[in-house]
Amino acid sequence: MQAPSEQNYIQQLSIDCVIFGYQEKQLKVLVPKMNFRGDFWALPAGFIYQDENIDQAARRILEGRTGIKDIYLEQFRVFGDAQRTNLQVLERLVQLNQEKLRDHWFNQKEFDWITRRFVSIGYYALVDINKVVPQKSEMDASIEWCPIKELPPMIMDHNEMVANALETLRLNLDQKLIAFNLLPQTFTMKELQELYEAIFDKPFARNNFQKKMLELNVLERLEKKFTGAANKAPYLYRFQPQG
Amino acid sequence: MQAPSEQNYIQQLSIDCVIFGYQEKQLKVLVPKMNFRGDFWALPAGFIYQDENIDQAARRILEGRTGIKDIYLEQFRVFGDAQRTNLQVLERLVQLNQEKLRDHWFNQKEFDWITRRFVSIGYYALVDINKVVPQKSEMDASIEWCPIKELPPMIMDHNEMVANALETLRLNLDQKLIAFNLLPQTFTMKELQELYEAIFDKPFARNNFQKKMLELNVLERLEKKFTGAANKAPYLYRFQPQG
Repeated sequence: MQAPSEQNYIQQLSIDCVIFGYQEKQLKVLVPKMNFRGDFWALPAGFIYQDENIDQAARRILEGRTGIKDIYLEQFRVFGDAQRTNLQVLERLVQLNQEKLRDHWFNQKEFDWITRRFVSIGYYALVDINKVVPQKSEMDASIEWCPIKELPPMIMDHNEMVANALETLRLNLDQKLIAFNLLPQTFTMKELQELYEAIFDKPFARNNFQKKMLELNVLERLEKKFTGAANKAPYLYRFQPQG
Repeated sequence: MQAPSEQNYIQQLSIDCVIFGYQEKQLKVLVPKMNFRGDFWALPAGFIYQDENIDQAARRILEGRTGIKDIYLEQFRVFGDAQRTNLQVLERLVQLNQEKLRDHWFNQKEFDWITRRFVSIGYYALVDINKVVPQKSEMDASIEWCPIKELPPMIMDHNEMVANALETLRLNLDQKLIAFNLLPQTFTMKELQELYEAIFDKPFARNNFQKKMLELNVLERLEKKFTGAANKAPYLYRFQPQG
């Protein structure tokens, strides 16, 4: 993290990112663990430079943690409780890690800056998990893809943020045709259905699902997938919006 | 408008409100016109007190302009271009209204505060237009319900904000069952259909529409509407979510 300062960044405004990936039939979220004593899990986050659009800021933060540039991202909500502040987290962090913090982080002015009330813009991102090489920031001990059902307790309202991002993802999924951002370029109908089942956490009927997806008119059917058993091989599809 | 100051408000963060009403088969937006020389139309807006949740701030701003407290409101997007500032608007306003501004508004410090880059949280609100008595602020010459198809050119990105709010309203309309906030407590199926047609700006087939609405399982059928012609009178309905 760069030392925050009034001159560089908009004050009291931050961005938090819920980065969704899909793997082993599970929806996952990219979660860094901070490199301090005590278990501090926090969503990838950052601030907005004075000369930077908010979407650019979100892309910069996302690229920093995923190593990729072209990411589907969308605002989902602003979190703006009057009591929303890092103060308790930072105080506990200082308490547990005095020496480390004294050596590396936060002079008093920076501590004051970062413990004020913050309004945070929540973005969610959808990535092809195979393309991402998760990047630790200098404050992280590790960064992991965590199944959404097994998320650790994170700092502040970050668990609520994930729940909210998931809710928005579900609402948007059909209307905005965005699920494909979570898949490799080609996939079978079964794989697509498993993705939807992971996101909605419920089973879909195979025939209905296939019918609905084909009616969207955005799937291009390719050759059959090579499985060794040619006559039962499923078709591969590719997302190809019309017009 | 109260004189803005660093101590009271979060800096560089504002709220803009798109207040939707429905009247004479038209979707309308509540638009104040500022009391200065030159045609300055602007969405109802305000800032966020340091000790105030952002939703509370939006409710305060909405109540100030509509006179009512219980309003359906929802964030729809944050507008955060790096170049987003009141500077051009304020400069033109000063140029055209020197005397008036000198007498009443903005010392230099306030001018500097309000012409910095602002990130703005867009909220849209749905109201029963019959319950609203539009309130001018001290900076307004008038405040009017304007059909969404006849909006004047507003300052900054406010026309884009309305377009965006409308898009979100359309996306949310079925899934969140919110259209009823625009209607009086009871309405006929035809009136409900006309509302949907106004929002989506296209006709719906009567039978399909009625079937779809009844399947939502949120309409309670009441007595027939008194029209004088008893045998052709339509039923009245009331929004009544189950469970």
